[in-house]
Amino acid sequence: MEQSRRSFIQKAALGLAGAAAIPFISKSAPFNSAAADDAKPLPIGMAGYTFARFDLEKSIAMMKRVAVQNLSLKDFHLPINSNDGKIKSVMAQFATANIKVYAVGVIYMKTKQAVDDAFAYAKKVGVDLIVGVPGYDLLDYTEQKCKETDIRIAIHNHGPEDQLYPGPQQVYDRIKTRDQRMGLCLDIGHAKRAGTDLQKAIKEYKDRLFDLHIKDVTAAAQDGKAAEIGRGVIDFKALVKALERVDYKGVCSIEFEKDMSDPLPGIAESLGYFKGVMSSVT
Amino acid sequence: MEQSRRSFIQKAALGLAGAAAIPFISKSAPFNSAAADDAKPLPIGMAGYTFARFDLEKSIAMMKRVAVQNLSLKDFHLPINSNDGKIKSVMAQFATANIKVYAVGVIYMKTKQAVDDAFAYAKKVGVDLIVGVPGYDLLDYTEQKCKETDIRIAIHNHGPEDQLYPGPQQVYDRIKTRDQRMGLCLDIGHAKRAGTDLQKAIKEYKDRLFDLHIKDVTAAAQDGKAAEIGRGVIDFKALVKALERVDYKGVCSIEFEKDMSDPLPGIAESLGYFKGVMSSVT
Repeated sequence: MEQSRRSFIQKAALGLAGAAAIPFISKSAPFNSAAADDAKPLPIGMAGYTFARFDLEKSIAMMKRVAVQNLSLKDFHLPINSNDGKIKSVMAQFATANIKVYAVGVIYMKTKQAVDDAFAYAKKVGVDLIVGVPGYDLLDYTEQKCKETDIRIAIHNHGPEDQLYPGPQQVYDRIKTRDQRMGLCLDIGHAKRAGTDLQKAIKEYKDRLFDLHIKDVTAAAQDGKAAEIGRGVIDFKALVKALERVDYKGVCSIEFEKDMSDPLPGIAESLGYFKGVMSSVT
Repeated sequence: MEQSRRSFIQKAALGLAGAAAIPFISKSAPFNSAAADDAKPLPIGMAGYTFARFDLEKSIAMMKRVAVQNLSLKDFHLPINSNDGKIKSVMAQFATANIKVYAVGVIYMKTKQAVDDAFAYAKKVGVDLIVGVPGYDLLDYTEQKCKETDIRIAIHNHGPEDQLYPGPQQVYDRIKTRDQRMGLCLDIGHAKRAGTDLQKAIKEYKDRLFDLHIKDVTAAAQDGKAAEIGRGVIDFKALVKALERVDYKGVCSIEFEKDMSDPLPGIAESLGYFKGVMSSVT
């Protein structure tokens, strides 16, 4: 809310209230914090899956190296049914590293028990956002849990080969009339492979756009492969402009799925490219 | 020359001939080749000093990882007085890796013999550009060598602590009336530390701007430290625009001088950022 107010004040000061011409990125501002206050523009994060082959310590070290401070926590770094002591210990490691866990996921949910576990886990970890994939038959129950807990769910699209949510439209169509705490984690790589017009999707689904997985792919087709941001087919200038136009309030989490045994150079190149685009789009 | 013609044709096609409003970067074009033909915009390279702590094989592997194909060769990878066999062998390694050595240097020259050696080395390596630092008393002799060999020299500025060339002005003032094969390798980090207005320097010295060392620094002051591009104080959007305006024809060589024992993540982040800016500046 604070960010909206700031944006309005900035626009008003420039005589542009009502227009969408002011970039939310300033050259000198940090890119890393998810907190919404006056000094903090579009935040960057990491999607935990990036670190699938690394333990917590090595994953944290990589995040520190690239100076990214927001994380969507994946269960291999903190299992879903961990006891309180384990959760406390892992969260303390993040706190020491100045890393904010802003979401948990991606969590796949095929049973009511799995939905219960996911919401209980989010609550214990202390986040209000689950990035998840509930089956269609669990959407009613998931909605009920959102209402009960005030925890949001961002349903993740997973590309043309996915049975449930190949693109963001298959998510949006199923949640648009539901509780407003149900939304979308737009995975731009999978969406691109599924033929999605990313700018159009951002515009159309803006009210339910809770999270982003930022990446690049080599082709806008099912067999498109993961690539360093800037080496693939996604137009990041247009993407950032689209996010700017809808005043996106979430985190831009980079998910790097190439070279997963040695991802740091690709993470760094991707992060650099995305920051470079953000610094230059007006 | 080919690039000038293309630029003119593009501008003419858009009804903008004479204006400087067309970016020379296109989203889809490669950033890596130094050759000037219609499909190739502003090329990116590496300044060899980045790899000071690595042998040739490891340096080449890092360049391949970040897909950079232009190199300013430093003498620790090929000593200046190498015999023909050694030169042939090293150049074959670059050719196999699809890396183009477009310059040699930085080479410091304190004697006529050193100037002779540098020009002989450039000729044997097969480049027409030396990035070098000749003493003031050797500028006449260096000019004579440029004329004799048709090899250019780009004199490198080295920051406020440097006795000879702290900023680009100290270079330019000493070569501006000399042979047109004498010019400048603008090291933007050292220049920034020396208080240089980079956009102004690019504009004023454009006719002699042969090479660039691209980097970032933490402060526009003598004690500014090397940083990943985008994390420091240099305005890369303005820099790229300035290069565009003067239709810069050289290579943008990234020189990364932080974490020199483990530079790859910083090289990758820097490269990504610069590419991201180039893709977005219009």
